[in-house]
Amino acid sequence: MAASIQSIKAGCRKVMCIGRNYADHIAELNSARPKQPFFFLKPPSSILLPGAGPVLRPRGVTMHYEVELGLVMGKTVRDLDPEDTKGAMDAIAGYLLAIDMTARNVQDEAKKKGLPWSIAKGFDTFMPVSNLIAKSRIPNPQNAHIWLSVNNEVKQSDNTELMLFRIPRQLSDISRVMTLEAGDIILTGTPKGVGPVKTGDIMRAGLKVDGKDIEEANLEVP
Amino acid sequence: MAASIQSIKAGCRKVMCIGRNYADHIAELNSARPKQPFFFLKPPSSILLPGAGPVLRPRGVTMHYEVELGLVMGKTVRDLDPEDTKGAMDAIAGYLLAIDMTARNVQDEAKKKGLPWSIAKGFDTFMPVSNLIAKSRIPNPQNAHIWLSVNNEVKQSDNTELMLFRIPRQLSDISRVMTLEAGDIILTGTPKGVGPVKTGDIMRAGLKVDGKDIEEANLEVP
Ligand SMILES: [Mg+2]
Ligand SMILES: [Mg+2]
Ligand SMILES: [Mg+2]
Repeated sequence: MAASIQSIKAGCRKVMCIGRNYADHIAELNSARPKQPFFFLKPPSSILLPGAGPVLRPRGVTMHYEVELGLVMGKTVRDLDPEDTKGAMDAIAGYLLAIDMTARNVQDEAKKKGLPWSIAKGFDTFMPVSNLIAKSRIPNPQNAHIWLSVNNEVKQSDNTELMLFRIPRQLSDISRVMTLEAGDIILTGTPKGVGPVKTGDIMRAGLKVDGKDIEEANLEVP
Repeated sequence: MAASIQSIKAGCRKVMCIGRNYADHIAELNSARPKQPFFFLKPPSSILLPGAGPVLRPRGVTMHYEVELGLVMGKTVRDLDPEDTKGAMDAIAGYLLAIDMTARNVQDEAKKKGLPWSIAKGFDTFMPVSNLIAKSRIPNPQNAHIWLSVNNEVKQSDNTELMLFRIPRQLSDISRVMTLEAGDIILTGTPKGVGPVKTGDIMRAGLKVDGKDIEEANLEVP
C-alpha cells in the first residue's frame, strides 16, 4: 500500500461512514437504535491532512467532533460475507484515526426535512486524519481504545469493542451495495461524548493498544 | 482534459447531484419546492460506462431512472460567486448525459426516518453515463433538450432552461461547502417523468442542441 497519508488522500475515491454504531452515542443524540447499520458518504475533499491547519467552521454552523477508527482498504471487495472475518481483515491495508466533523444544526435540519446529509458531513476540513497506522500496529481493530480531548479536557474515550456492528458486518453491508476499492476509507462510528467545538479550540485525539499509545495515531487540530 | 469517459471514471473523486431542480419533477414526487438548492453525493463506484452492461436492480428495490445533464469539472473551484457565469463556464471541461438511478423505496424510507440518501443513490451501476461530450458541442448548457425512453416509449423530454437553480448557482453553492476538483462530476437535476424500470427494460437517453442530436450523448442501457 501507499506509504503516506498524503498519498491516501490523493488516491481516495470514497469515504463511507457508519452512523450510530455505539449504543451510548445513540442515547446521547436521542436517536433510534438501528436494526441494521446505515451509512453515508463524505467527499475525499473534506480530508484534512496532519499539520494542514485548523478545521474551518462555516458561518452559522454548530460544529461537532466525532472521533472514529478509520480503515484504509487495500483491495477491491464486493459482496463480502458478514461472517468472513478473515476476508474483511485481508481487505484492510491499514488504519487511521479520524474526526468525522459534523455540522450538527445542518444535519438536524436535514433529518427533519428528510434531506441528504452530504452537506452536513462534507465541508472542506471536516475530516481531520492522523498519519497512516500500519496494520501490524493494531492486531485486533475491535480492541483499540480511542479518545479525543478539547482544550486538554477528555471528551471521548472508549474501546472499539463497543461497536454494535463489527467491521466484517460493516464491510459486508457496504460491499453488497457498492464495490469497495483500494484506497477507499471506512469510518467505523463514534463512541459517546460528541460535542461542539468553536474556532480556536484545540482538538487532540489518539489511539491505544494494550494501554500503549500508537504514535502515528496522534492527531492535533488547532 | 482527459479524452475519454473511461479516464473520467478512473479519475473521478466526487459526484455531486442536485435534488428537485425542475418544478414539474417536484410536483410529481409531492416534494416541497426548495428555497435553496440541496445536494447529495453518489460514489464514483456507481458510474456505469457505456457498453458495460445493464443496471443491476438489487433485490427488493424499486428502481427509478432520472435523466440529467452532467458537468465534468476542469479545474479547482472554491467559493464561486453565484453571479459569475463566466467563472462557472470556464470551470467546466465538458459534459455527459447520465441517469441518476435511485432506489426509490429505499430513499422514501430514508426520508421518513431522516437518514442519509447515500445507499439509495449509491448502488453499483446506478449511474449510467454517455460518452464524454466536448464542451463546444453544447454552446449553452441552459438550452439543451434531454430525453429518456424506456422500451422506446419517451418518458422524459425537457429543456435544461427549466432548471430552477442554474449552473453558476449550483457550482457556487457546492463550492462554498466543498472544493470542486478537476474530474469531479455534477449532475444538474432531472425533469419530470421519472418512473420505475425493471430488469430487461431498455433505457435510451439523448441530448439535442438546436433540434440536432448530439451523438456522443446517446446512451443505451440494456
Ligand atoms: Mg460519525
Ligand atoms: Mg447523503
Ligand atoms: Mg437526480
